[in-house]
Parts: sequence; C-alpha cells; structure tokens
Amino acid sequence: MASVLVLNGPNLNLLGQRQPEVYGHTTLADIQAACTAHAATLGIGVTFVQSNHEGVLIDAIHAAKGVHGGLLINAGAYTHTSIALMDAVASVELPMVEVHLSNIHAREAFRHTSYLARVALGQICGFGQRGYLMALDALADRLAPA
Amino acid sequence: MASVLVLNGPNLNLLGQRQPEVYGHTTLADIQAACTAHAATLGIGVTFVQSNHEGVLIDAIHAAKGVHGGLLINAGAYTHTSIALMDAVASVELPMVEVHLSNIHAREAFRHTSYLARVALGQICGFGQRGYLMALDALADRLAPA
Amino acid sequence: MASVLVLNGPNLNLLGQRQPEVYGHTTLADIQAACTAHAATLGIGVTFVQSNHEGVLIDAIHAAKGVHGGLLINAGAYTHTSIALMDAVASVELPMVEVHLSNIHAREAFRHTSYLARVALGQICGFGQRGYLMALDALADRLAPA
Amino acid sequence: MASVLVLNGPNLNLLGQRQPEVYGHTTLADIQAACTAHAATLGIGVTFVQSNHEGVLIDAIHAAKGVHGGLLINAGAYTHTSIALMDAVASVELPMVEVHLSNIHAREAFRHTSYLARVALGQICGFGQRGYLMALDALADRLAPA
Amino acid sequence: MASVLVLNGPNLNLLGQRQPEVYGHTTLADIQAACTAHAATLGIGVTFVQSNHEGVLIDAIHAAKGVHGGLLINAGAYTHTSIALMDAVASVELPMVEVHLSNIHAREAFRHTSYLARVALGQICGFGQRGYLMALDALADRLAPA
Amino acid sequence: MASVLVLNGPNLNLLGQRQPEVYGHTTLADIQAACTAHAATLGIGVTFVQSNHEGVLIDAIHAAKGVHGGLLINAGAYTHTSIALMDAVASVELPMVEVHLSNIHAREAFRHTSYLARVALGQICGFGQRGYLMALDALADRLAPA
Amino acid sequence: MASVLVLNGPNLNLLGQRQPEVYGHTTLADIQAACTAHAATLGIGVTFVQSNHEGVLIDAIHAAKGVHGGLLINAGAYTHTSIALMDAVASVELPMVEVHLSNIHAREAFRHTSYLARVALGQICGFGQRGYLMALDALADRLAPA
Amino acid sequence: MASVLVLNGPNLNLLGQRQPEVYGHTTLADIQAACTAHAATLGIGVTFVQSNHEGVLIDAIHAAKGVHGGLLINAGAYTHTSIALMDAVASVELPMVEVHLSNIHAREAFRHTSYLARVALGQICGFGQRGYLMALDALADRLAPA
Amino acid sequence: MASVLVLNGPNLNLLGQRQPEVYGHTTLADIQAACTAHAATLGIGVTFVQSNHEGVLIDAIHAAKGVHGGLLINAGAYTHTSIALMDAVASVELPMVEVHLSNIHAREAFRHTSYLARVALGQICGFGQRGYLMALDALADRLAPA
Amino acid sequence: MASVLVLNGPNLNLLGQRQPEVYGHTTLADIQAACTAHAATLGIGVTFVQSNHEGVLIDAIHAAKGVHGGLLINAGAYTHTSIALMDAVASVELPMVEVHLSNIHAREAFRHTSYLARVALGQICGFGQRGYLMALDALADRLAPA
Amino acid sequence: MASVLVLNGPNLNLLGQRQPEVYGHTTLADIQAACTAHAATLGIGVTFVQSNHEGVLIDAIHAAKGVHGGLLINAGAYTHTSIALMDAVASVELPMVEVHLSNIHAREAFRHTSYLARVALGQICGFGQRGYLMALDALADRLAPA
Amino acid sequence: MASVLVLNGPNLNLLGQRQPEVYGHTTLADIQAACTAHAATLGIGVTFVQSNHEGVLIDAIHAAKGVHGGLLINAGAYTHTSIALMDAVASVELPMVEVHLSNIHAREAFRHTSYLARVALGQICGFGQRGYLMALDALADRLAPA
Repeated sequence: MASVLVLNGPNLNLLGQRQPEVYGHTTLADIQAACTAHAATLGIGVTFVQSNHEGVLIDAIHAAKGVHGGLLINAGAYTHTSIALMDAVASVELPMVEVHLSNIHAREAFRHTSYLARVALGQICGFGQRGYLMALDALADRLAPA
Repeated sequence: MASVLVLNGPNLNLLGQRQPEVYGHTTLADIQAACTAHAATLGIGVTFVQSNHEGVLIDAIHAAKGVHGGLLINAGAYTHTSIALMDAVASVELPMVEVHLSNIHAREAFRHTSYLARVALGQICGFGQRGYLMALDALADRLAPA
Repeated sequence: MASVLVLNGPNLNLLGQRQPEVYGHTTLADIQAACTAHAATLGIGVTFVQSNHEGVLIDAIHAAKGVHGGLLINAGAYTHTSIALMDAVASVELPMVEVHLSNIHAREAFRHTSYLARVALGQICGFGQRGYLMALDALADRLAPA
Repeated sequence: MASVLVLNGPNLNLLGQRQPEVYGHTTLADIQAACTAHAATLGIGVTFVQSNHEGVLIDAIHAAKGVHGGLLINAGAYTHTSIALMDAVASVELPMVEVHLSNIHAREAFRHTSYLARVALGQICGFGQRGYLMALDALADRLAPA
Repeated sequence: MASVLVLNGPNLNLLGQRQPEVYGHTTLADIQAACTAHAATLGIGVTFVQSNHEGVLIDAIHAAKGVHGGLLINAGAYTHTSIALMDAVASVELPMVEVHLSNIHAREAFRHTSYLARVALGQICGFGQRGYLMALDALADRLAPA
Repeated sequence: MASVLVLNGPNLNLLGQRQPEVYGHTTLADIQAACTAHAATLGIGVTFVQSNHEGVLIDAIHAAKGVHGGLLINAGAYTHTSIALMDAVASVELPMVEVHLSNIHAREAFRHTSYLARVALGQICGFGQRGYLMALDALADRLAPA
Repeated sequence: MASVLVLNGPNLNLLGQRQPEVYGHTTLADIQAACTAHAATLGIGVTFVQSNHEGVLIDAIHAAKGVHGGLLINAGAYTHTSIALMDAVASVELPMVEVHLSNIHAREAFRHTSYLARVALGQICGFGQRGYLMALDALADRLAPA
Repeated sequence: MASVLVLNGPNLNLLGQRQPEVYGHTTLADIQAACTAHAATLGIGVTFVQSNHEGVLIDAIHAAKGVHGGLLINAGAYTHTSIALMDAVASVELPMVEVHLSNIHAREAFRHTSYLARVALGQICGFGQRGYLMALDALADRLAPA
Repeated sequence: MASVLVLNGPNLNLLGQRQPEVYGHTTLADIQAACTAHAATLGIGVTFVQSNHEGVLIDAIHAAKGVHGGLLINAGAYTHTSIALMDAVASVELPMVEVHLSNIHAREAFRHTSYLARVALGQICGFGQRGYLMALDALADRLAPA
Repeated sequence: MASVLVLNGPNLNLLGQRQPEVYGHTTLADIQAACTAHAATLGIGVTFVQSNHEGVLIDAIHAAKGVHGGLLINAGAYTHTSIALMDAVASVELPMVEVHLSNIHAREAFRHTSYLARVALGQICGFGQRGYLMALDALADRLAPA
Repeated sequence: MASVLVLNGPNLNLLGQRQPEVYGHTTLADIQAACTAHAATLGIGVTFVQSNHEGVLIDAIHAAKGVHGGLLINAGAYTHTSIALMDAVASVELPMVEVHLSNIHAREAFRHTSYLARVALGQICGFGQRGYLMALDALADRLAPA
Repeated sequence: MASVLVLNGPNLNLLGQRQPEVYGHTTLADIQAACTAHAATLGIGVTFVQSNHEGVLIDAIHAAKGVHGGLLINAGAYTHTSIALMDAVASVELPMVEVHLSNIHAREAFRHTSYLARVALGQICGFGQRGYLMALDALADRLAPA
C-alpha cells in the first residue's frame, strides 16, 4: 500500500498542550489520528515523524526514499531558514506538499518566505489540522511507486 | 442556502484554451462545474465571476456582502500588486480563502508576495483545479450567516 | 461658477456602511453633502465621482479639463500603486489636493508612499470628513479659470 | 491580410491636446494615420485601441488572438506596474513589440523598469511617433499566421 | 481658555526674511498673528515657540502638559530624523497635528518620511501659512481638558 | 525550590580551553560554579545544559516547562539565525533572559540581530561571566511558579 | 572615591510622572536614589545628569574626563541616531555601559540599532531600574583611575 | 555629407563567427554593409568602429566631434558599467542612439540598467541587425551640422 | 574687511587634548591661530565658533548672514545626520566649504555620506589643520559682500 | 602521522545514489577512497565524517583539536546559513579548506555566500571529487602539529 | 600539444616586487615557470599573458579560440566589475577555471562577487601560486580539441 | 628633485574645449601650467598624464614607483567604478591625493562613492583648477623619497 511520510518540525510536538486558549486543544496526536483515518479512505498509509532537530528531519526525508511514495512537510520555523531541508527533498525526488497550521503570509515578514516551497508541488497554510487532510488528498494520486 | 462567491482575476478566462500542452485542457468552465458539484455535496452554492478588470473584481467583492457567506479568490497577477483588492476584502468582513493554480512561491520572485494573504484565512497554491475544491471545504463551515 | 471635481477611489463607497463601530457613521454621501454646503460658502461648486476602477478615475480626471477648476482626490489604495493616476493629473494641469481620511503615515509601511503627492499642491490626511473641507479651502483661490 | 493590434495605454489619448509646447502637436490620431499609411506600404493592416483601463487593455490583447498577427504596445504607466498585462501577452503567444514615446530610461527611476519587456521581442523608446513605425517594421515579417 | 502650543523647528525663524523671491514675504510673526486671530474665532488661545535646538523643542513639548490642550508642530528638518521628538509627543499624550509649509512628499526622498507622523492625528503639508490655520481647526474640538 | 535552566549554545563548551590569551581562563564549568553559588544566595537552583545541537536546545527548552521557573539563554551563533529557538521559548511561556559573553553589537553586523530578543525579558551582553549572574538576579523574582 | 557619571537622555525626565499605568511609578529620582544607595555598597559615588539636549549630553561626557571613572548611559532615542554621542564617548576613553529600561530589541525596528553600543563595554536592556544597578556592578571594578 | 559614427563595444567583433546556431550567421561586417547601404538611401555616411577597449571607445567618441553629426552606440557589456562612456557622449554633445542586438530587459537583471541611456535620444533593443537601421533612420534628421 | 565664520561641530573642542599619540598635539586653538594668521595674508578675517549643540551651530549660521562673507564648516558627526544644518546653510545663501580633519571616505560606511555636501562649494578631507587653510584659500575670492 | 578531518555536511551521503544521470555515479565512499589513497601519497592520514546534523558537524570540529592537523569541509547547504560552524572552526584554530562539488557561484544567489569562507585558507568549488584531492594538497604542508 | 592560456589581470605584474614582507617573494615569472613545469608533467603547454587593460584581456580571450584548449584566468579586480570579460569567455566557448591568489571571500564585501564565476567550471582562491597548478590539473582533461 | 605624478582620467582631455559656457575656458594644459608653476614654488616637479584608458592609468601608477614621490589623481568617472585603480595605488605605496573639479557629493548618487578614496590621504572636490594646487600643497611635505 502506498504511503506518505508526514514530517513535523520544531515545536509542533507542543501543539495543543500549550496555550490551548490560543491554539485550541488539537494535539499532534489528534492530527496523526485524523490523517490516519483520512488516509485509509484514500487507500494509502501514513507515517508520522516529529523532531526539533533539523538533522533528524533530513535523515527522515532520506529514509523515505523507496519506502514512501510522497512527503507532507510542516517544517515549522525551519521553513524559512533551511536550505538543507530543501536540498534533501530535491535529492529524494519524491512529490512533496508543504503545510502550515497558520497563515504564514499574514504573520511577521520573516515567515513569508519558504525555501521548501521551491521544491514543493504546492503550499497549504492557514487551515490548521484540515490542511494536513487537504495535503493528503493532493498527494494521493501523485505518489511515486513504492 | 449559504453560498460562496468564487472570484477569478486577469487572464484566467483563457485557461485551457491557450497553451494546452502546458496548462492542460481544464477550462475555467470545467472548474466552475467541478466547484458547483462539490459545493452541492457540502450543501452550499457557488457563484462564479471572472474579470480582467481590477475594478470589477472590487465591485463584485462589495456586492457579495449580504449575498454570499464567503469568498474564494484567485486574483491572478493582481495578487501581487493590488492593495485595493485587499482593502475590499477587509471592508466586507467575509471569510476569504486565496487560491492559485500554480505554486507561486516556486516562480519569479515578484510572484512570491501577496497583499491578499494579509486578509485571508489561508492560502492554497500549486494544485490546479483541486485547490478550488479544497478551498470550498475550508470555507464551508466558516461561512458568515446570510 | 468655478467648481472642483472631488474624486474618490476604491472602497470609499462603503464608507459608513461597513464597520460603523470602527469608521463611524459618516457616509460618502454625508461627505458630499458637507462639501457641497461648504463649497457654497466659498462660492464654488463641487462634483462628486467615486469609482473602484482605476481607468474610470483616469477618465474622470481627463474629463475635468475645461470643466472644473481644480481636483480634490482621495485615491484610496491606488495612491500607493498608480503611476497612471499621477500622470493623468500631470496631463490636465489642474491644481490638485490629495486627501486621506486616515493618517496614512501612521499605518502599514506600504501606505506611507504616494505617487499622487508628486503632482499635488499638498496633502491632508488623518482628519476624516474635515480633510475634504480643508482641501476645498486650500483649492478655492487657486482654481484654474473655467 | 495580416494585421497588428496597436494598443495604447493610460493618458495617451491626451497626446497633442495637452501641453503642446512640451509634447508637440502630434495627436494619437496622427500616429494612427501614420501607422495606417506605413502599414499599407508593408502590406499589413493596423487596428488602434486606446484605453485608460488596465482591464480593457487585457481584454483587447485576449481578443487579438486569431484576429491579429502581432501586437504593438505602448502601455504608458502600466508598463512599470502591471504584471497582469505581461501575463496577458504571454497567454496569447503573439509577437509583441514595446514602444514608448519618450526615453523612459532617462526619466524617473520608477520608469526604468518594464514588466512587459520580459515578453517582448524588443523595446523602442525615445523616438516619438517614429517609434511606432519602427515597431511595425520589426513586426512585419514576424507576424503569426492569421 | 483652552490653548494650543504651536511649535516651530529649525530654520523657520528665517521665514520671509530670506529669499523672499522664493518663499514670499510671510514671516513667522505673520503666521503667529494669523494663528492668534484665527484661534480667537475658535475660542482658543495659541502660544508660539520656535527653536533651532532639538532639546528646546522637546522641553517645550514636556512643558505643554497640563498647560496646553494640544500641539501643532512644524518640526522642519527634525521631522525626518528625530525619534526623540516623536517620543516626547507620545509621552505627554496631547493631541498633535503635524504641519509643513511645503509639500514634503514632492521634494527629496529623505523628506518623505516622518517620525512625528507616527504619533500625529494627521498631517497637513503644502499649503504654507494656511496649513497652520487648518491645523488649528482640526485641533479645536479635540483639545485635552486643561 | 524555584530553579532556572541555564542554556548554552554552540561552541560555548570550548570556553577557557581555547585561546586563553584571548578569552581568558574562565571555563563554562567555572561559570556554572559561579551561577550555582550565586543562585544559592538568591534561594533558587540552577541547571546547566550546553549543546552544539539546535534541536537539543529546543528539546531542553520544552522540557523546562513545569520543571524550571525561568530560562537564561546564551544561544551563541544560533541567536542570529534560529527562528525555531525563538518559537520554542514562546511556546513554553517561561520568563527568559538573553545573555552574551561579548558585546555582540560591537562585532560583525550579522551578530547585531537576535531572534531570541523578541521573546526575552531583556538582553545582557559584553560582561563575560558576570552577565550570567546579572541575569539570575533579574530572573529571580519573576520566576514562574513550579 | 571613584565615581560614575550616570547620563540620561531625552524624555527620561518624565519617567513615572506620565502614564504610570504603563510605565509604573518609578521616577528618575527613584532610580537616582537606588543608584546612590547601591553605589555606596560598592564604594563608589554616582552623579546623575539628565537632559533632552544632545549637546548637553556631549558636554557632560567631555566634562566627565578626569572627574569620573566611568559612564553609565541611557541615551533614550539618541541611542539610535547620534553618531556624535558615540564619538564623545570614544574621545574621553572612559569605560561605558549602555542601559535601556525596555528591551529595545523587541520594539520597532528603528530601535534595534545603537551607535553607542560600538563603544560600550556592554549593553543591558529590558530590566527597568534594575538595569542601572547591574551596570554599576559591571563598571565598579573597571573604573578608570581618577 | 553628414555622417554617423557607429560604435560597437566588447565582444561584438565575434558576431556571426561564434555559436552561429544561436546568434545566426550575421557578422558585424554584414551589419556594416547593411548600414552603409541604408545610410546611402538616407543621404548620409557611416563610419564603423569596434573595440573591446573602453578607452578606445571613449577616444572614438571624442574624435567624432566635428567629424560626425551623430552617434549610434552598441556598447555591449559596457552599457551597464561605464559611467565614463556616458560622460564621453555628454561631453561631445552629439545626438546619440543606443542599440542592442538582444532585448536586454528580458535577460539577467544586471543587463536591465544602462548608464548610456541617460544621455541617449532613445534606445532600441531586441531586433538584431535591424535595430542599427532603425537607429540610422532616427538619427538621420537630427544630425548635428558638420 | 571680509570675514569667514569657521564653525566646528561636536567633539572638536577635545582636539589635541585627548589621545595625542593618535591625533597629535594640535588643538583647536592652534587651528584657530593658524587660520587667523593665514587669513591675514589673504586680507580677510576669521571668527571661530565651536559647539557640541546642533542648535547652536544652526543659530551661528543664521547669525553669520550679513556679518560674514562665507562659511567654513567642520560639522563633525552632524555631517552625516543633520538635514537641519544643510537647510540652515541653504537659508543664508553664503558660500560654504566643508572640511574634515580625517579622510571620512576611508572610515566607517556611515561617515561616507554628507548632507552638508549638497550645499557646499566643495569638500576637503584628510589633511588635518591644513584643510582649514586650503578652505580659506578657496573661499577668499568668493566671499559675499558684507 | 599528521591527518586531516574531512567533514561532509547535509545530503552528501546521497551522492551517487540519487539522480546518477545528473550527478554521476561517484559516491561519497568513492571520494573517501580516493582521498585516502591520495593522502597516503602525501604522507598524511584522512578521517571521513558525514552528517546531516549541524550539531554533529560542530562536535566533530571540536573533537578534531589535538587529533587532526587540519580540516577539509564541504558543509553543503550549511555553508550559506551557519554562523555556528564558522565559529567552531575559528575556535579550534586548525587550518581549514572549504570545498564544494559544484560551482556555487554559478547557481542560485543564496548559494553565493559562505560564512565558512571567512575562516578558511581558501575555497575550491566546481571540480567534483577532484576538489577534495586539491584541498588535501593545499593542506598537506600547513597542517598543525599533532 | 593541447595548451592553456593563463590570463592575469590588473596589478598582478607587480607580484613579488612590491611589499614582499606581505605577499612574499614569488613573482608572476615564478608562477609562470611553475606552471610551465607543471604543465609539462601534464603533457600540455601554457601561454602567459598579463595586462592591466580590460580590453587587452578580452582580445586575448578572443585570440585563444582555436589556439588554446582552455583558459585559466586570474582577473584581479576586474573579476568583480567586468561583465565584458564574462561575455568574452562565454563567446569563445572554452573551458575556464577562475583563480585568485588570496581568499577573496574573506576580504572586503565588494570582492565576494564574481561575474566570471558565472561562466567558469570552478573557482579556486586562497592558495597563492599553488592555485594555478591546481587549476591546470582541473583543466587538463577537459581541454577543447585544438 | 622630488616630483608628483598628476594623473587625469577619462574625458578630462576635453576640458575647456567643450561647452566653455558651462565649464569655462580653463583647459587641462592650463591646469598643467598652473601646477608646474606652483610646484616650482614648492621645490618639486610635476609630470602630467591623461588617458581615457583605465589600463593606461594603472600602468602609469605602476611606473611612478621609484620615479615620483607622490600621486595626484583625478580619475574622473573611473573613481566610482574601478577597484583596479584602487589596487594599483595600494600596490605602489605612494602617498596619493584625490581631486575632482566638481563637487561630486552634490551630483548624481552614483558619483558620491569613490573606491580611490579608500587608499587616499584625502579628497578635494569642487574647486576646479585650484583643487590641483591645494593637492600639491598637501602632498609636498609627504613625498616618498625618490
């Protein structure tokens, strides 16, 4: 069964546990559950990885080659600063969709730019958990053969 | 029935009729049909407007107030240059989602910026026709009361 | 009787009808009435035009030549982006005063610049409706002969 | 007979009627007549359109497809600000030459840049009416088949 | 009786005494007289201070607190360079209107920016002595209680 | 007993061991000892962490939540480049003081900026080991309850 | 007895008297008292000077040579704009510490830069009155001989 | 007989001899022949100079004074970097037209600027050899008296 | 007898008294003596003013009108930041020469710019005391009539 | 025997395994073998480390002190963004040569800058595997004593 | 026998003759001798040209076509300013390696950029004479056929 | 007898022969004569070189070593663009004074910068021929021994 690696970057592990009055009570586990359920309806699998380490994220992208058919990446703050992550995605030649929980283009100027976007099929931002499901939809029929 | 105004900016009328070897054969009419069908499954209506005139687009946004519950806008090239369109959306206080057929963040630098994004719930780019359907999903449960 | 063309740009038609808790209840019609009354005390006439279309605003400036003795322009968001409007004012060689309801220099950086200011007698911003009346005062004794 | 659409942007309608001591007495009608006569010697036709509306200019470019074999565009101030016009020309895939009456590179810095130039065969500026005739010469043997 | 402190910055003391062929014969004393007369019709008083010393201007703003109900400031060249003046106005929490004799937005680029504008009700520029009277009008009904 | 997590970023482990003729003989262990002793006089505890890994630093900040009452961070070179560290501090909502051994504002331009400063109570730089003790003083009475 | 000149720039005289709900009730006199008391425990004296005049501040720095053993400077808004103050400190060759009540690096961008920092031992910002005491600590054992 | 100096800058000597599959087979000699023939029909003469040396080009411009009635300059890469060439043209006060074989405004950003354009009657680019003939047309009736 | 006002800005009063191993033993009094002697040979008088206060410098420039025939200004650090000083010189319409002891163009980038230069006859920098004498030479035969 | 630490940054582990039609079939293991063989001819040893983790690379640089006599670093994408790596090299005071497989100066603008270059003996880029051997040659006779 | 043209730009003729305490005693003749010897071991020839004239360097590049199989260029200061040299290399379509004696990326910012690098196989800097030999190695097996 | 090489750059050969109504009738020969006469009074010799060729100017600087004791350079437009000239002066280690006839800091922005200034003793601009004599004065007692 084709599968997607869902990669989450720095600080996303705290989702729902901190400032719930601001960010709501949805946790990354909730998002994982929702993605798993949604992926099942699409006939694909999902694997979740979260790390605050840029290097771990790069390693995970490398390891996805030949295992997963596509990448869904919410790289958090590394989106704006990491050329290495961009190069990693380019190296493995897997289709990738970029997701952000918030609308990064309506926040501080340094969050408006994305190195990852240069190698993404597309970008979805501002829709919280739903953005992940949208991204799975968009990836489902473009997955690389296992 | 709640409805969404789907607004399309300059040059989108040519979609599918020009350079089909590049952009494919999907026309704006095809997208309208797909949106209408998808909206029906969401229990909402859609109204399509396309114009190459910035003023017509602003007028249409104004006219949406009290008629439609939300806006889906693909402003084409005006995305990057029109403060007036941004102000129009802010004025009518309707939830708005920004859509682009191509991944604007992977194209020329002058297409990386969006005035509209400052007043959008979120942005979806790079997924062609599918982006419109995603946007309807994201808007469906946030529509302003008629 | 000498007269002034009062030109209002994008989104100003919504004045007073939207977000009255923010912008107050003064409408563009109210401003027109106040201008008309004030102009009468100055012995001049006023003609009001509002449009969300950059082209209509340019056409109106052209048409003012030989009909009106001066221009009062609140170009809204086009103030910051339209070289064409600036050229239009320069072409008709009529005295022009630039007005803004809000203090544009205390808002976002992209509202601090004005192409129109390069061809204006002066700029008045931050005084709401009163700014229009001030501008009429300033124009009254500099009107071009009809 | 192959023909060229000659498109004139904002404020060019005032040519020759305003500030003749500066710009001379040549009107746009004069230029049209000269172009028509010159085109005849080249065995091609010319159609003239002038508008102060960016949207009308885009519509005209779209309508040229299949009707005209090439475009001659003096977009006036829109040259420097309109990505939408550039996209319109790219969409119709007609050969286009950019013309300016004055030498825009010797004027204010904001007139030195041209979005249109990115999709033009070439640019001619600084030669007044003659520039139009030069452009017709350059277009004549590159016209797309009707 | 409510009063306004009218503050004039560097070089304004020379007004009318130098280059009268350029700036006319109106002196700062003339402006003071006109302001005093106009203020009387508004039922308010005016106090005039001019200094070429940034520190004196700041001291005067501080001293206005509790004495005057509003500030009218033409800070001359300090407009563009003095963060300290801006902070002074913010500190005393008095309504302030910024005035310039010339249209600063049509002059050298370094005169287009204003720190003071960030804490002003509004800005009036380009109308010579009349600008002061306009500013008094705008301040008259917003004066802080003595 | 309330405690502070003292976090040290890249290359600080080499302090005192390299180039002692330049940086002196104070080691990070010396600073830790001095902080521990000083904290005791303030009735608080300190925990020291040093890492050259951005991810480890983020993990440590996350782990501090509910364990420590405040953060003292010398992020070394990551100060200038890491948005992720800034976001981590914002996420845990602990009071944080930023410390630098050298006066970063008197060094190369790329060391003048700090993402961390946006979420810090304050910044202390240029005082070597003493800066850490100052920071403990400043944090002592603002610590979050355990 | 060695002593420190504590120099306070524009608008700091208003501290505690204006907007106490924002800035608290601590006045500059309170800070002076706290510094005097703290300095006594360090065996040094302090002299306080406050002025809104850049020139007075420079004169005071010059006069400190041979009288005081060090400088503590909170230059307020002049921090960001005055090269002359920086040169004054460099000229007298006294150790200097820069203090700011608020965290200037978390405020408007134009407050992030400091000319003074180029000639300071270090910078302390964001700790209110406490910053002055910290600075005295840092200066105490580096004072130039009287 | 009035004549024009046609000046060609660096690398233009290789035209037609290198990469003919890219640039075609037209050589500079071909262009010279075409110019000579075309000039004859205009009743003027042409003199061709090509050099890769900026100094030689300046010397040639100087020598043209009193000998030629106008200048046609394709300065190649010096267009974008040479203030000295611009000053040379300004010094001799001869009418000058700037020509480029390719459309420099559609190439790398560093080719979009031209110092020469500041002292040119106009600029023609993108039309290959034809641009030279157009330029002769434009110069023919503006030549300075010999 | 015609005379020149020699104006010296911030920190120049310390010349020769501080860091003599760096700047030498020449004091401002020495420069004054040398200028007086040299001026005598030119048949003109000199008046020396030094101040660390921008406002005092402006006042002195104003007072020079009608008293002195020219200005020699070494504005120190105000050279790079004061628009007000530039305006003051422009207001009095006296010939002015700008002098700097050091070669400001070989120092920090922020010392490369000069507002004063815009209204100066010329600039002399890098020659220490000699620069003042050179400037007197250059001014001697351009002095305004008393 | 003196030895060199050869450090390889992010994504270099994929060399030769991905996109061989683009990058060829040379793997990092091949490069290691070639370096080892070449080093032997130079009478030195080489140790290879590759990591996608910035922190691991810094740790490795630290550990080289006293073990290796020099550093050969291909930091991949971290070249352009990591101040921490630069500081690490500066801290250990070992001679370092910077190598890149591709010519980074002929690629995207963000690859033209290198923090590492500031502390390198030199930079070699564009020669693939050969660049490593060149770098060993350059390092061989500058190695620090073990 | 295949050969390489070794081109040296401005000021390199002075190598070893000036400031030997800084640059050492190696002269350009020494480098030429070393290159000649090294080339012999590679079975290729070398021709040395040095000029301070940009035009001479361009002429030499042109003349290399058909004579030499590759170019080794140390363009000195022209590296950073000459688009014409870059175009010359592109025109002759010979493989080129760029060499600098010093590490230009560790010097003034204006030496960090290279137009030549855009058309080079690679760049070698910081290794003095050795860089030339490295470059010959890199060129040896890529030489164009004679 | 010690001597100075007076070097004049592009277009200075035309001085006095072109636009005498603008630049006056002083020729470069006049300046040479004045310099020769003035130098005689200083007991030094002068040699004049003028060239429009950057390479010739560099060659002349090189040749001055050991022949002349100092350099007086008016590099014309090369002042702003030539790093090579700056390097040439640095190479020969002769004292150099930079002269400009006009006040370059009051002209176009691109004339405000000078590479040469970085290696000059000082700069004199705006005084026409007199600037050369001033420069000789400044050089006279700093000449390197022959």
